[in-house]
Amino acid sequence: MTLELVSTAKSFEGEQRVYRHRSSTLDCEMTFGVFLPPAALEEKSPCPVLFFLSGLTCSHENFIQKSGFQQHAARHNLIVVNPDTSPRGVDIAGQDDSYDFGSGAGFYVDAKQEPWSKHYKMYSYVTQELVDVVNANFPVVPGRRGIFGHSMGGHGALICALKNPGLYQSVSAFAPIANPTECPWGQKAFAGYIGSNPDDWAQWDATLLVSHYESTPQELFIDQGASDNFLQAKQLLPENLLTAADGNEHIQTIYKQRAGYDHSYFFIATFIAEHISYHAKLLTAT
Amino acid sequence: MTLELVSTAKSFEGEQRVYRHRSSTLDCEMTFGVFLPPAALEEKSPCPVLFFLSGLTCSHENFIQKSGFQQHAARHNLIVVNPDTSPRGVDIAGQDDSYDFGSGAGFYVDAKQEPWSKHYKMYSYVTQELVDVVNANFPVVPGRRGIFGHSMGGHGALICALKNPGLYQSVSAFAPIANPTECPWGQKAFAGYIGSNPDDWAQWDATLLVSHYESTPQELFIDQGASDNFLQAKQLLPENLLTAADGNEHIQTIYKQRAGYDHSYFFIATFIAEHISYHAKLLTAT
Repeated sequence: MTLELVSTAKSFEGEQRVYRHRSSTLDCEMTFGVFLPPAALEEKSPCPVLFFLSGLTCSHENFIQKSGFQQHAARHNLIVVNPDTSPRGVDIAGQDDSYDFGSGAGFYVDAKQEPWSKHYKMYSYVTQELVDVVNANFPVVPGRRGIFGHSMGGHGALICALKNPGLYQSVSAFAPIANPTECPWGQKAFAGYIGSNPDDWAQWDATLLVSHYESTPQELFIDQGASDNFLQAKQLLPENLLTAADGNEHIQTIYKQRAGYDHSYFFIATFIAEHISYHAKLLTAT
Repeated sequence: MTLELVSTAKSFEGEQRVYRHRSSTLDCEMTFGVFLPPAALEEKSPCPVLFFLSGLTCSHENFIQKSGFQQHAARHNLIVVNPDTSPRGVDIAGQDDSYDFGSGAGFYVDAKQEPWSKHYKMYSYVTQELVDVVNANFPVVPGRRGIFGHSMGGHGALICALKNPGLYQSVSAFAPIANPTECPWGQKAFAGYIGSNPDDWAQWDATLLVSHYESTPQELFIDQGASDNFLQAKQLLPENLLTAADGNEHIQTIYKQRAGYDHSYFFIATFIAEHISYHAKLLTAT
C-alpha cells in the first residue's frame, strides 16, 4: 500500500496533492487527488473525508483544476479524495475506441464480462481499496465519510452509497446518470461490463436500488442544470429516481433544478460551495 | 469588427462566453473569453471591465477554467476579458519550436524583427484593438478599465498600464516577469521580437518603465508565491521593480509574498478573490 507523491501545491492554505499507487483490485497503477485542508496539515487533526467521482472522459485532473472545490474544503476542513474514472495502462483491445466505454468510462461497476472483468472493478476500488488506502495514509475521522460526483460519477456516488448503507454519511450528485438501465450510456456500459441479461443490471442502477432500499434512512441531494443537453437527451433521467424515492419512506431527496445551467464544470463550480457545505454539515454533526 | 460566439455557459448567474474575431492588428483570427456578470445580462447595466493576460503556453482557456474568477467577478459585477497569448494560425517558421517564444509566447510587445513583425503585435492588440472591440460590443462603463495578469501576462499588464497612463484605473499582477531585460525568458523574447540592441528593449520592461515613470500617480499590486521555482530561478525579479518604485514618488506598490505558494493556477485561484476585490474597489470608486 505504498503511495508515490506525484505532485503537491499549496492551495487555500491547504495542499492539493496527487498520488499514484498500485491497485490490487484493478491490477494496475492508479492516480488520485487528495486535498488536505489546513487543519489536517498544521495540527494533523483528523478530518472527515469526502470522495468525488468524475464523469465520462475525465481523469483525476478535471475536478482538481476546474471545480474550485479547494476553497470550500479548506474552509470546512474536509479532506477530499478524487480517483480516476477507469483502470489505466492496461491492455484490453477496444478500450480506447469510444469516449463512453473503456478508458475514462469505468462506470463504477465491477465488470463480469471478459475481457473487462480482469481490471474494470471501479466499484470495489472506490468503496473498499481506496477507502482503506485513505484510512491508512491520511488523518481521517473514522466513520465520517461522504461521497459525491458528476454525471457518470453522480451515478457512481449514488450506487456506492445505496449499496453500502452506513459507509457514507452524506451523498450528493451533480447531473447524475440516475437510471442507467433506461438510457443509452448506461445500456451500452452495462451490456459491455455486466452482460446481456438486464436482470444483472439492476444492482448497478440508482433508481432501481432506490425502489428496493429498506435499510438506514438515506438522504440524497441531487443537483441538475435545467439547460443540460444530456438531460434533454434522456441520458440522466433524474425524474425516474425522484419517482422511485417518492414511493420509499427510507429515502429522502433534495432536488434542485438550476435554470440556465448546462452539464459542464461551470455548473459544478457554481454550486460546489453549496454541496460542500451540505456534506460538511452532515459529516461534522454530533 | 464582427464577433463570432464560439461558446457560452451560465456561471454564477453570469455567462462565460468565448468569441472569435478577425484581428486587423495581428492579421489573423483571434479567440478571447468574456465573462458577463448578472448585471450586464439582466439589466444590461454598464459595468467596469477587467482584462486578464495569461502566461507562457496558455490560450484563452486556462484562466477561464482554472482560476475560479467568475464567482468574484459576478459578485462585483465586473466584465472580465481574457485574450490569447499570441497570434494563432499564422505561418511563421519556427513559431512552434519552443514554449517560451512564438506561439503561446507573444510577450505583449510589438515585434520589430522579421518575420515576427507582420503578426506579433500583442501590445497594440491588447491596448487598442481589443479595447475597441470590447467597447463596441459589451456594456462597459467608459473609463472604468482594469488590467491584471500572470507571469508573462503579469509583465504584460504592468507594461500596458505603465506605457498608457490613464488607460487603466487598476493594475495587478501574479508573479510577473518584472524585469525581462535581466532574465533568460525576457532576453530570448526581446532578442527575437525586438532585435539585438538592448536599448530598444527598455520600453518593454516594467522595472525600467517604473524607473522613468513621471505621469499620473500609479499604484501596482504585485502578488508573489514565495516557493515559486521561477522566482528562485531569477526569471521574475520582482525585487528589482520594487527597488525602482522605491525611488519614484509617482509609483506606489503593494507587494504580497505568500509563504509556500508556487507559480501555478493553485496560487492564482487562492488569491484571485483579493485581486478582483482590489480592482472592483478602484473601478467603482466615485
